[in-house]
Amino acid sequence: MNLEALHSISYGVYVIGSRKGDRLNGQIANTVFQITAEPPTIAVSINKKNLTHEFITESRVFTVSVLCRDTPLSFIGHFGFKSGREINKLEGINYKIGKTGAPIVIENAVACLEAKVIQEVDVGSHTIFIGELVAADVVTDKECMIYAYYHQVKRGATPKTAPTYIEEKKIEVVIAAKYKCNVCGYIYDPVFGDSDGGIKPGTPFEELPDDWVCPMCGAAKSEFTKVV
Amino acid sequence: MNLEALHSISYGVYVIGSRKGDRLNGQIANTVFQITAEPPTIAVSINKKNLTHEFITESRVFTVSVLCRDTPLSFIGHFGFKSGREINKLEGINYKIGKTGAPIVIENAVACLEAKVIQEVDVGSHTIFIGELVAADVVTDKECMIYAYYHQVKRGATPKTAPTYIEEKKIEVVIAAKYKCNVCGYIYDPVFGDSDGGIKPGTPFEELPDDWVCPMCGAAKSEFTKVV
Repeated sequence: MNLEALHSISYGVYVIGSRKGDRLNGQIANTVFQITAEPPTIAVSINKKNLTHEFITESRVFTVSVLCRDTPLSFIGHFGFKSGREINKLEGINYKIGKTGAPIVIENAVACLEAKVIQEVDVGSHTIFIGELVAADVVTDKECMIYAYYHQVKRGATPKTAPTYIEEKKIEVVIAAKYKCNVCGYIYDPVFGDSDGGIKPGTPFEELPDDWVCPMCGAAKSEFTKVV
Repeated sequence: MNLEALHSISYGVYVIGSRKGDRLNGQIANTVFQITAEPPTIAVSINKKNLTHEFITESRVFTVSVLCRDTPLSFIGHFGFKSGREINKLEGINYKIGKTGAPIVIENAVACLEAKVIQEVDVGSHTIFIGELVAADVVTDKECMIYAYYHQVKRGATPKTAPTYIEEKKIEVVIAAKYKCNVCGYIYDPVFGDSDGGIKPGTPFEELPDDWVCPMCGAAKSEFTKVV
């Protein structure tokens, strides 16, 4: 069985918003899909460990912001690698409150959807929340972010709680010296550089400025370990 | 509510294989997604009217072939717009029988997955079948087909039984004379031509050769009606 085959399934990259009473939160997800056309229903798969899971279970509402292709890694890192249990992730973010009272992230969004949960499916580590659409808007005509693009071109990382997480192979032939962020798992690959941080492709890790930070989570350069 | 927003959700294009006893069938789907990483599970949403629905319900197995980006429209049309009730869709197609006895389409596939159903979710017009992975293979390193590419670049059509089907707007400003296939709904747009059929962009429908057929379902030119 070659689990790499699972990587060929296509996804987008989304911010899922929800609330619990007055508390608001957002997180990154990639498994969002339409279920039926009539009535329009959508579904999202959320890890049971995530705060968003607790919020949706309680409020039974969620929003989806479809991210555009040029969303900075730091934005995805903010919603994907930090927990709403520790910080208010919506502070300083452009968002609005939807019909359901849940937050809809506008920043970097191509389109926004809002839904009321009509069914939930326990699938082990995750729950699939199925929602009837209550609002839908197109924000811009920009291209949306494809998960494969996020991985291959932007070199983004996947948190361990994602359905699509596959443990990195321990043994690999090191051609260029890559460095991994101890905080979020982002891998700096000199072949690609760091376009968000203005670092050109071909720049070795050792030559990065001292104030360079992880484009994903903002950790300092000293938090990186050479990948061997 | 702007249902166009739903179009920004990203999908791939897949052939779903199944069987009922010795009878084999395959159909196109776009809502395939990974559910959990441990154990690896995948899900597919199938319209209750489709023969594949009857097959999976009975045999409780299904396969997924992830289609490559250069899959001809005729191939997608063959699996997407014809019914296994009328023809044997696997005749003349390169496929193999998987561990579960279900057919795995190899032709135009980037990767193949095979699963045993562990759970099914009734969602109105569709059922979501959740399966535990029993086999997975990468076939080639070609790029896979993204649903948006299929629509925008290849000008593919969506059958009415798909979750993502949205009825075409009746009123539109006609700039170039488009023609619609009465059989499958494919729209010939002179702006794009028909790359599969060797028709250059900019070719009016009226100038297509008499033996030109619908790239999607093979219907004759006479089956087309001007879109007004």
